[in-house]
Amino acid sequence: MANDPAELAERIASGDVRAAARLMRDLDDIRPGAIAVMKHLYPRTGRGFVLGITGNPGAGKSTVVDALISLYRAAGKRVGVVAVDPTSPFSGGAILGDRIRMQRHATDEGVFIRSLATRGHLGGLSRSTGEVVAVLDAMGYDVVIVETVGVGQDEVDVVSQAECAVVVTVPGMGDEIQAIKAGILEIADVLVVNKSDREGADRAVRDLFAMLELRGHDAAPVEIVRTVATSGKGIDELAHAIDRFRERGIHASDVPNAGGITPRRRRRAQATLRELVVDRLRRATDGALAARPELVDEVAARTTDPYTAADELVRAITASK
Amino acid sequence: MANDPAELAERIASGDVRAAARLMRDLDDIRPGAIAVMKHLYPRTGRGFVLGITGNPGAGKSTVVDALISLYRAAGKRVGVVAVDPTSPFSGGAILGDRIRMQRHATDEGVFIRSLATRGHLGGLSRSTGEVVAVLDAMGYDVVIVETVGVGQDEVDVVSQAECAVVVTVPGMGDEIQAIKAGILEIADVLVVNKSDREGADRAVRDLFAMLELRGHDAAPVEIVRTVATSGKGIDELAHAIDRFRERGIHASDVPNAGGITPRRRRRAQATLRELVVDRLRRATDGALAARPELVDEVAARTTDPYTAADELVRAITASK
Repeated sequence: MANDPAELAERIASGDVRAAARLMRDLDDIRPGAIAVMKHLYPRTGRGFVLGITGNPGAGKSTVVDALISLYRAAGKRVGVVAVDPTSPFSGGAILGDRIRMQRHATDEGVFIRSLATRGHLGGLSRSTGEVVAVLDAMGYDVVIVETVGVGQDEVDVVSQAECAVVVTVPGMGDEIQAIKAGILEIADVLVVNKSDREGADRAVRDLFAMLELRGHDAAPVEIVRTVATSGKGIDELAHAIDRFRERGIHASDVPNAGGITPRRRRRAQATLRELVVDRLRRATDGALAARPELVDEVAARTTDPYTAADELVRAITASK
Repeated sequence: MANDPAELAERIASGDVRAAARLMRDLDDIRPGAIAVMKHLYPRTGRGFVLGITGNPGAGKSTVVDALISLYRAAGKRVGVVAVDPTSPFSGGAILGDRIRMQRHATDEGVFIRSLATRGHLGGLSRSTGEVVAVLDAMGYDVVIVETVGVGQDEVDVVSQAECAVVVTVPGMGDEIQAIKAGILEIADVLVVNKSDREGADRAVRDLFAMLELRGHDAAPVEIVRTVATSGKGIDELAHAIDRFRERGIHASDVPNAGGITPRRRRRAQATLRELVVDRLRRATDGALAARPELVDEVAARTTDPYTAADELVRAITASK
């Protein structure tokens, strides 16, 4: 990155897609130059609407995203997409097809799609996703969709940091509608029952309602929308539900503080900051480990216990006396 | 923990199951007293054989574990099991049944089963699993089985740190046998095709062989074993394959260094140590964040960028001048 950071930030903010893609790669590699550019881009963020989408494998998340992109584009909005790919070597095979389908928007200048593999990300998925979202936001995309393909906790965390989290499920998965309950209701702002032309759709909606009921009176309202994303059915209604969620001031409890910052926005800022700090300390740890190979040998030989060795490394890294 | 750490460690090492269970809970809560006990237990570890088992959801991992426990018990060996539960709110519903089945061994004094949920673990799954394995090892269990139910990267990492990693798959999953390939061959020491009385078993074995071939000549040999775990068929052969793996000196490349430490054992020690250090630094980060709430507000208000704020927090935590 030979360019001046301020100038490069300017170019990216005014829509230079190649420069943006290169910046994202450089951020993945944690290049200092890329961070300098981000410092210039950051003040321009906060205008795009960040929408998270997650749900059961096979629920048709990518098809829902695909349909939403078309709808937002028809309304003249520019759309950025961060597709977070499987976290695990054990995922199904249907993913690639959906991905390819979504790529039909790739020739549309109003759409920018970036895939993030969850393996090999220095410093974690959450940091990488946050950075890509920030770049797209600064580039002026009106809506930034974060879609996860995988089902790991990391990915759930990523979606829960969006301004609106949409959770997609399907009827007829039997017990799985039960298994979804614990973590999912915590993060869902809007629930989608996709493939709702299938048998069992009524029951799926009823089950979700029953689960929402259990949350008690203080819980924020969560709409349940039925879609058949392959035909576009219900996507309008989904977009409206998302809008209504925004208009409700996010959560009844999400009122801004004196500085105009809502708790949700503050949580996101804190998560971003924490991720960056832990990431740097993780790298400091790797450095300290490389500098003290004999400590690892001693732990392996069980002549030193790992707790004592960890104390020593933490002392080497931090300022404790 | 009012007791003297050395005395408590002695009691646990001589088989006090209640004290061991309490220690594991206290380790989860990162109580200093628990760590003091671990320091005494650690020199007693390294004798048990740590066996990791992972694989596709629905492949019958728990049934394989169940059958292996029976086999090892019949041979007079004591068995500890760490069952790592789903990482995600999106998992299937069949898990509980398998878990309950395995619990039939819970009344056997020669078997100790500990479940670890992947949510809510302070400091990460890998640290928690490592600590439970160390306790079971110090208690003199001959075999410590680490079984993961979930499919997240965390869980794959956990299994890859075992002395022998068994990966269980099933025939007839179509494309999924393809999807397994990338991450799985890296960690598999023994491959199992379970439910091998099903159609497609031959093809599954052939596909796995083909994938192993692609690794080239230098790759360590990996046996493929067919099982029908529900009837116990093939479990003997699996145990033999595991033994042969041990006898082969783990990997051709896994020769001990001058200190008698094999690369694999060293890698495990390094992973344990790294997890402990990062865990402490993560907690230091949370402390620093709590001490500087205005920094989070500034990032949320976009008056400070997160990189600059992270620099400041890292400075507060570490000794960089």
